[in-house]
Amino acid sequence: MIFDLPTPGFSFEILRVLGHARAGVLHTPRGDIPTPVFMPVGTQGTVKAMTAGELRAPPLDAAIILGNTYHLYLRPGLDTIAAAGGLHRFAAWDRPILTDSGGFQVFSLAGINQIDDEGVTFQSHIDGSRHRLTPEVSLQIQGVIGSDIAMVFDQCPPGDADAAAHEQAMARTTAWAARCAAVTRPPGQALFGIVQGGTDLDRRARHAAELVAIGFDGYALGGLSVGEPIPEMYRVLDAFAHTLPSDRPRYLMGVGKPADLAQGVAAGIDMFDCVMPTRNARNGYLFTSAGKITISNARYRMDFGPVDPECPCDTCRTHSRAYLRHLHMAREILYNRLATLHNLTFYARHMRALRDRILELGTAPTPP
Amino acid sequence: MIFDLPTPGFSFEILRVLGHARAGVLHTPRGDIPTPVFMPVGTQGTVKAMTAGELRAPPLDAAIILGNTYHLYLRPGLDTIAAAGGLHRFAAWDRPILTDSGGFQVFSLAGINQIDDEGVTFQSHIDGSRHRLTPEVSLQIQGVIGSDIAMVFDQCPPGDADAAAHEQAMARTTAWAARCAAVTRPPGQALFGIVQGGTDLDRRARHAAELVAIGFDGYALGGLSVGEPIPEMYRVLDAFAHTLPSDRPRYLMGVGKPADLAQGVAAGIDMFDCVMPTRNARNGYLFTSAGKITISNARYRMDFGPVDPECPCDTCRTHSRAYLRHLHMAREILYNRLATLHNLTFYARHMRALRDRILELGTAPTPP
Repeated sequence: MIFDLPTPGFSFEILRVLGHARAGVLHTPRGDIPTPVFMPVGTQGTVKAMTAGELRAPPLDAAIILGNTYHLYLRPGLDTIAAAGGLHRFAAWDRPILTDSGGFQVFSLAGINQIDDEGVTFQSHIDGSRHRLTPEVSLQIQGVIGSDIAMVFDQCPPGDADAAAHEQAMARTTAWAARCAAVTRPPGQALFGIVQGGTDLDRRARHAAELVAIGFDGYALGGLSVGEPIPEMYRVLDAFAHTLPSDRPRYLMGVGKPADLAQGVAAGIDMFDCVMPTRNARNGYLFTSAGKITISNARYRMDFGPVDPECPCDTCRTHSRAYLRHLHMAREILYNRLATLHNLTFYARHMRALRDRILELGTAPTPP
Repeated sequence: MIFDLPTPGFSFEILRVLGHARAGVLHTPRGDIPTPVFMPVGTQGTVKAMTAGELRAPPLDAAIILGNTYHLYLRPGLDTIAAAGGLHRFAAWDRPILTDSGGFQVFSLAGINQIDDEGVTFQSHIDGSRHRLTPEVSLQIQGVIGSDIAMVFDQCPPGDADAAAHEQAMARTTAWAARCAAVTRPPGQALFGIVQGGTDLDRRARHAAELVAIGFDGYALGGLSVGEPIPEMYRVLDAFAHTLPSDRPRYLMGVGKPADLAQGVAAGIDMFDCVMPTRNARNGYLFTSAGKITISNARYRMDFGPVDPECPCDTCRTHSRAYLRHLHMAREILYNRLATLHNLTFYARHMRALRDRILELGTAPTPP
């Protein structure tokens, strides 16, 4: 069952459903994205330590990566990306890219000078220079970057925000989302809305309704995995995710652990991103079919087996735990490469297994 | 013209000579090494930032890499390397490896506690632990590593050493070389002697004669590029290199810039190693057919041409100077990978061009 999305060239195909879980394909002008999908994070125009060729090559075979608007805007800067002809050409990545709006990084990394209903004035974490981000500016930046999926500029309150803070963030996010939707985007760029509201289901439902009334190509859940207890996140996912429009892709932002992805898929989420596989790799934590391992552990000093015997990635087919441990202890760049390739492959295989299970056990979707 | 070397399985073939320069092949039990050759430095069991597969792949196509005995002995340690079955299997590198003796690093990196005629007691630069290196221990370590070419344990005086210091280092190096030659090596491991003597030609000649009297598979020039003026090094190379046995490979240790390699080849050198291409890459210096460039320079911010239009490496075929500059400024790991691949490819192509010129313009060698 294929649903055309509002932006020309985009459609969302649902092949099978299993409970709330869906297996499908997000069709974009730049290529198909099998869903559910995990999107590796390419913060500064590169998924850290990886080449585009490695990301594309099976068994990793990343269908889409994420770029960070805040980072790319500050460095290399819009003039360079514009002159290059967009981020795809600049970074030699020919598959889809999703960009966040910059808001999350402005609120978490930059020095905030002022937040008002119009936008945010902030200072660069790199050189202290002062900048202003508004919904319109965010969309203009994402337009220059030329991402395939842009995100609305939202305000994400912290995990311990009170009800008033949530209500203000929701109101502001709705107003900003409407302004984002009014900006003319380059051809072939979809736009997703972001639902805030914290862990309160009534707030989530009210905010989702406001965004659906504006109308977006997809809907993201923001403001989860920002400090709230995991069971709280699962409760919101289970009760709320499937209530988002079933004919649009649903995206859980910044989540998470492999178990979180499984939980999200079961709740009806189609898209995920998180720095966990890449950051954990660099910090010495490797995902395996038998659980996470800490490669610096002395037990791996003489362990000449692969990181994960079930993993078909080049790292596991070529190198031992002992060699990876040595490279990690010696702070060798090669360690970061081999570990990142493995963890991203683990995530890709994890998502593929979840998808295959839906395709195998699921049923044909029914019209919404 | 093929010369059998003393160690079974090794021979040195000279195809053409041009003045003192020679183009040939060093045949080893683990594969052929076209000479003159540049050996990338794999200090800690990895050429920094590179996989074995990338080193093997044309146009880089490294025929041999170097490993550092001092570093590998300290980390991962001999028990791990022995249990892995040697460095080749530990690092998944199936082509020849040359190991230095550990002496140079002991004298330059470690805390020296004592030097005597027997050996050197030093403290690890990693954890301060105390160790003792002697000619016999160095050969035993190199035996466990399982390198294809081992080097004698020598004493390399600093560039500003006086005559007495040179004479003492020469006498000690000769005595240590004889003790190294008396150690039983694993099958398929050749042993090279190291000529000291600084920039004095008489000392060089006397020391070479002492080493030739012992008899080695090849002869290295140590103690150059250790602080002496470049013209001094060239003077020694021009006058001395070709006097080393013509039927044995000649190895100029730790040198150098592309122009130094050309000078060395013209003087009769067959093998080189240096951290320059790899270290310069990481520090932002890239070699090109039009000279060295500093990639952080603002002039490359919007330069969407390749690092070197004449270079066939993946970096130059895929990425722009502007992208590399961005990755360098953002301290991305991918920068180190792309830059190292390019610089090593530049060195490999440089050596291949020198070799091709000798093959094209040279004459058949005459018997020694």
